[in-house]
Amino acid sequence: MSDGSAVEIHQVCVRFHAAIELIGGRWTGAILQAVFTGHHRFARIRAAVPGLSDTMLAQRLRTLETNGLLERRAGPPESAGPATTEYHLTAKGRELSPILDAVIAWSHRWIPLPEESARR
Amino acid sequence: MSDGSAVEIHQVCVRFHAAIELIGGRWTGAILQAVFTGHHRFARIRAAVPGLSDTMLAQRLRTLETNGLLERRAGPPESAGPATTEYHLTAKGRELSPILDAVIAWSHRWIPLPEESARR
Repeated sequence: MSDGSAVEIHQVCVRFHAAIELIGGRWTGAILQAVFTGHHRFARIRAAVPGLSDTMLAQRLRTLETNGLLERRAGPPESAGPATTEYHLTAKGRELSPILDAVIAWSHRWIPLPEESARR
Repeated sequence: MSDGSAVEIHQVCVRFHAAIELIGGRWTGAILQAVFTGHHRFARIRAAVPGLSDTMLAQRLRTLETNGLLERRAGPPESAGPATTEYHLTAKGRELSPILDAVIAWSHRWIPLPEESARR
């Protein structure tokens, strides 16, 4: 609708907006990347993301499950213990792969290593 | 280093982690997308992102400038007024294009429109 006084503004797609903030939320991208690189158990994912607490990881895993990016599966038991829980990507989660690859390529070109950054 | 008792964990790249949270921070992706689609002035960017406040936009523009994704330029004056300020992508910012395109493609496949979501 345009009444002549207002200029029509092409708005940012709400689906894009929801997607970028889902993937880029604090810790979320790093957790997804840890699962992509083959970490499927809670303790392994936590160890793969420096600074991530148990509480935060548990919360983010729930969010990623609720949003259909990850699903829980029973994993093989460790020695004679009970079955373990594993987190795996769903089809929706796996299709994030081109996005994460593009972020990796961009970051390696534009984000300095922490050491380089500290020397400046 | 592995002493036999500890399993080595391949950690998530710190540059990837910094990049995904820079791009995916609250409002940031939507603001970048607004600039990509041709909005360069404060009021236009705000109008292109529903729900975004002046304060939040000003803060995010500063962050994007500090991180070298956007730069300020003097734009043409409106009628007889003073010169305006415009926000433009730097080379570092322009190279986010494949990432944002991949997010758009993914979101159109996997994120339901708000109306569809409400009907469920």
